[in-house]
Amino acid sequence: MSGGRLIGVGVGPGDPELLTLKAMRAIKEADVIAHFAKRGNCSNARAIIATELRPGIEELPLYYPLTTEVHKDDPRYRDAMRDFYDRAAASVAAYLDAGRSVAVICEGDPMFYGSYMHLHVRLAGTYPTEIVAGVTGMSGCWSAARLPIAQGDDVFTAIPGSLPEEQLVRRLRETDAVVVMKLGRHLPKVRRALELTGRLSRAMYVERGTMPGAVVMPLIDKQDEWAPYFAVVLVPGWEQRS
Amino acid sequence: MSGGRLIGVGVGPGDPELLTLKAMRAIKEADVIAHFAKRGNCSNARAIIATELRPGIEELPLYYPLTTEVHKDDPRYRDAMRDFYDRAAASVAAYLDAGRSVAVICEGDPMFYGSYMHLHVRLAGTYPTEIVAGVTGMSGCWSAARLPIAQGDDVFTAIPGSLPEEQLVRRLRETDAVVVMKLGRHLPKVRRALELTGRLSRAMYVERGTMPGAVVMPLIDKQDEWAPYFAVVLVPGWEQRS
Repeated sequence: MSGGRLIGVGVGPGDPELLTLKAMRAIKEADVIAHFAKRGNCSNARAIIATELRPGIEELPLYYPLTTEVHKDDPRYRDAMRDFYDRAAASVAAYLDAGRSVAVICEGDPMFYGSYMHLHVRLAGTYPTEIVAGVTGMSGCWSAARLPIAQGDDVFTAIPGSLPEEQLVRRLRETDAVVVMKLGRHLPKVRRALELTGRLSRAMYVERGTMPGAVVMPLIDKQDEWAPYFAVVLVPGWEQRS
Repeated sequence: MSGGRLIGVGVGPGDPELLTLKAMRAIKEADVIAHFAKRGNCSNARAIIATELRPGIEELPLYYPLTTEVHKDDPRYRDAMRDFYDRAAASVAAYLDAGRSVAVICEGDPMFYGSYMHLHVRLAGTYPTEIVAGVTGMSGCWSAARLPIAQGDDVFTAIPGSLPEEQLVRRLRETDAVVVMKLGRHLPKVRRALELTGRLSRAMYVERGTMPGAVVMPLIDKQDEWAPYFAVVLVPGWEQRS
């Protein structure tokens, strides 16, 4: 039986040249390319690989439900998202059941905070599955900033900006190197937490790392409190630098 | 003036197909390929890209000093390593001063616990420098294990296995997702810390992730206490999995 194959494909942080050879091959060989996107928007992952898509390749866009009116701690938000991932997995499974291979393309690395993971936990137990690791968004950001992030015995922590301020403060106190991800509207809170822990002067702000229009600056020089969702703050460890 | 260019090139976790297009180009365009290695051993990074090297390309191997008789907390170890990195930077600088571009190839990502960083802090202030982000060793390991590692509001921590046991315990208590790196002789201590924190049953052991002869198993099934230096233990976050 030639059952379909599920492939979670990391397409890297944004620069199409940061695709791996393996991702290129997976995209060229797959019968179907699936990607997550907001309705009305182009998928970021698809934009990265747009020039690599075969003409006429079958695509399966998976549109997130509109949940702007529901807070993400509301049980209705969680239910809506679970239903969405159930339906997305079912639509991928329909192709797999028909013996077709489906590459789910993901920004960064598929297993590191990626939407692909929601399909993986629903399908990988049933269908042959492969993961193609990718360059993470955070690697793209510290490379764009040319910032050595962690070395030797450093502890490295990735923190979502959505954590409450007191948790941010505690995490910043406890670690050597830090990436604060998913910054967006949390920037003022993150800035306060960095100030409270004496780490503001070392913090770098990076927006659209590795992409056209990338912004890289010391956070202390950023005059406004607006940041896109995918912006990050980097605080390097390795203080002795020798 | 056509000054030389320094390029820190991540070559990924081991599978040559996990090289990025940008790394391929950097290797093809560079005048000189530099790589760190133990004397008498082939550089791991060089092994990954061996088939991509132009015939006759100039190579600059940078051999770590023999320090087996000195403990790494001994000041003599630190001095020997600093001298080594000073000399390595000087030998790279000699090429840059002659107007030649030098690609320093690194396993994983150049700015994430990489030896390249020691050259970067010595040279990037003086010479035009570029970083080519790579797929990290840890991404390679959780992909080989097909293990979703962190999602949503998870805090993710990378910990060197060399930390004292009480620090390992504290870090394991405080985070959602964990990678314990540089396992080697620290495996028994890491296992005890996982047991003490109730996280042993979820821990995966990965050796040579993405390479031939990769070992992926629940740590609880591993019968011996031997592990290579680059083996890792992964403890996934995202417990609700929905």
